[in-house]
Amino acid sequence: MKKHLFDLPENMIYLDGNSLGPLPRNATEHVARMMRDEWGQMLITGWNKAGWMQKSLTVGDRVGRLIGAPAGTVIMGDTLSIKVYQALASALKINSGRKIVLSDTGNFPTDLYMAQGLLKSLDQGHSLQTVAPEAVADALSTDVAVLMLTQVDYRTGRLHDMNALTRAAQDLGIVVIWDLAHSAGALPVDMTASKAEFAVGCTYKYLNGGPGAPAFIYVRPDLADQVEPALSGWLGHEAPFAFDLEYRPGKGIERMRVGTPPVIQLTALEAALDLWDDVDMQDLRARSIRLSDLFIREVEARCPALTLASPRDAQHRGSQVSFHFPEGYAVMQTLISRGVIGDFRAPDIMRFGFTPLYTEESDVLAAVEILQDIMENSLWDTPEFKQKNAVT
Amino acid sequence: MKKHLFDLPENMIYLDGNSLGPLPRNATEHVARMMRDEWGQMLITGWNKAGWMQKSLTVGDRVGRLIGAPAGTVIMGDTLSIKVYQALASALKINSGRKIVLSDTGNFPTDLYMAQGLLKSLDQGHSLQTVAPEAVADALSTDVAVLMLTQVDYRTGRLHDMNALTRAAQDLGIVVIWDLAHSAGALPVDMTASKAEFAVGCTYKYLNGGPGAPAFIYVRPDLADQVEPALSGWLGHEAPFAFDLEYRPGKGIERMRVGTPPVIQLTALEAALDLWDDVDMQDLRARSIRLSDLFIREVEARCPALTLASPRDAQHRGSQVSFHFPEGYAVMQTLISRGVIGDFRAPDIMRFGFTPLYTEESDVLAAVEILQDIMENSLWDTPEFKQKNAVT
Repeated sequence: MKKHLFDLPENMIYLDGNSLGPLPRNATEHVARMMRDEWGQMLITGWNKAGWMQKSLTVGDRVGRLIGAPAGTVIMGDTLSIKVYQALASALKINSGRKIVLSDTGNFPTDLYMAQGLLKSLDQGHSLQTVAPEAVADALSTDVAVLMLTQVDYRTGRLHDMNALTRAAQDLGIVVIWDLAHSAGALPVDMTASKAEFAVGCTYKYLNGGPGAPAFIYVRPDLADQVEPALSGWLGHEAPFAFDLEYRPGKGIERMRVGTPPVIQLTALEAALDLWDDVDMQDLRARSIRLSDLFIREVEARCPALTLASPRDAQHRGSQVSFHFPEGYAVMQTLISRGVIGDFRAPDIMRFGFTPLYTEESDVLAAVEILQDIMENSLWDTPEFKQKNAVT
Repeated sequence: MKKHLFDLPENMIYLDGNSLGPLPRNATEHVARMMRDEWGQMLITGWNKAGWMQKSLTVGDRVGRLIGAPAGTVIMGDTLSIKVYQALASALKINSGRKIVLSDTGNFPTDLYMAQGLLKSLDQGHSLQTVAPEAVADALSTDVAVLMLTQVDYRTGRLHDMNALTRAAQDLGIVVIWDLAHSAGALPVDMTASKAEFAVGCTYKYLNGGPGAPAFIYVRPDLADQVEPALSGWLGHEAPFAFDLEYRPGKGIERMRVGTPPVIQLTALEAALDLWDDVDMQDLRARSIRLSDLFIREVEARCPALTLASPRDAQHRGSQVSFHFPEGYAVMQTLISRGVIGDFRAPDIMRFGFTPLYTEESDVLAAVEILQDIMENSLWDTPEFKQKNAVT
């Protein structure tokens, strides 16, 4: 679709864009120009003259389009962990009478860790309850303050039904936070239609913003002027340059900004978003499903020892496919050494991401060809190899 | 001293390095190389192969040298606001029986805002008490849990006596946090000698890391394995890639890391630190004092309408000099239009930073020459100018 716009190493089939997206061809020069012409020539005046101060919002709007969020409802900054904390702390204030935070065991660990740290600090009798992903709907109750889920499971690719779960939760008075780390740029998301209160996500996976690219947070517009940002930094203040001694939250989503925005990272992300601005997410989703369905069909036909770990029905799957295999770590190491980049998640999951911007059917077929060859002919199952490549 | 190693615009005298440092000449290519050769060619494997995952620590050690902190006690990441929050939340846990956070009105507002947000969230009866900078020593008492100060006042440059205040506070059982935003790279700091429990700071001012460069946090080594990071993210976990569901803090300073590090910003900062690694801070301090003393002497001799806002004694001053003047905003706008870059802080402070890496005595003299000309001959005090340049 846009493979020629990425710098991909020759002889590499990259099926790990769900972990770190590749370098957009325009990004290096875009960043170099910002450093030379803006930082170098404007220095401090770049904050206004070059629009640095507005970047958290302008970039936020571009990410917003990809997740069905209206302009002015998404702001960039910090890391996903920080944004989870901020969303959860704000959500708990909305539902201050209840004490349970509900999540699932398929959530990415940092979401759970940040919740654990917050609840421990608050010391107000909250508890974090994690159930199996399939058990979330049944665990909803009027005791739950906040439902906090990642839409797409980072290991299996299992996809939660965002709209249905949000509706069920809100019917019981629960505030809802969605982590879109594996959704933004992976599949169509419609935050407005979901009616969820908060969403957070990162931009270094499917959006290709580069290692350490900033996170985003969405707040439903009717709440944005009411939420209390626990992380109340000066750039979320109503008038940062008044240097008042008392915090007064800024208007709308701006209050969720904390400190000085990472302008260089935001500039790299801007270049990456140039490749996203004209993408139709329905079209992308159709391509993603074609690629992942093809991969499942070919692997199952040619590598019968592998067991599908992802939902077979594409409607219940994000943009990745995982397989169980007891020696998955060794096989993945061999695959990587042969130029097919996926990754491994303990105990036995081989994970492959499908990113239609730069992955084509021919890549999928070539990857399976190599996988089949490894399964049939390689040394991955010798004791020597296993010892050398043991999971540490 | 190293002016030739910076890209400074011609015909500009930059006296605002206390707000945003200029572009080190090596930074653009260093970042471009990282993007091209590491992100572009290594993709996900860059986290290990290119040492991205270690950068928060390796860069932290280089910053640590400049603030008298031993290797392994400083870690980079997030913004200064976030690091203030993390230090304060951890400090309050150490002193959980006390309820007062003491600071001063010369602290940078975001430190106070983050404290206000934290204390409000905790809802455990804490209060933030802010006194005049001169009154801090007298306000110390056994009711105070945490003393949280910025060493150098961002408006006046007044310098707290870090070691004496820390000792006085600790004698009363108070935990101490120093914000080194205007200290790191500005004057010699010896965290070990100070015995303070925590320090935080930013790297886009004197250290020249670029707009949005990451912050740092120091934890005194004997506490590093005990502090509870309220912001308990996955990269502060003992084994991030075990993907456990329960948070277990990592060893030492690593537990203060939160989310994915901003690798591109860290790379720009690395280039900036190349210019710092051989700097002797005592020598730099001597040069800084020569520059700022010269500036005060010349301004007072040639612009008698301006009143010194900074301590006259260099021993009580950081690396900046400020003057009061009722029409300071208009004069600063005129100065900037004439190529002398300082900045203005309400209500009447004209602020000038002195950064010996790239500022020389000839710059100081040329700047005062222009300032004198403006004071004597410019239109800054016409009603038209004032209206056009009104502080908004």
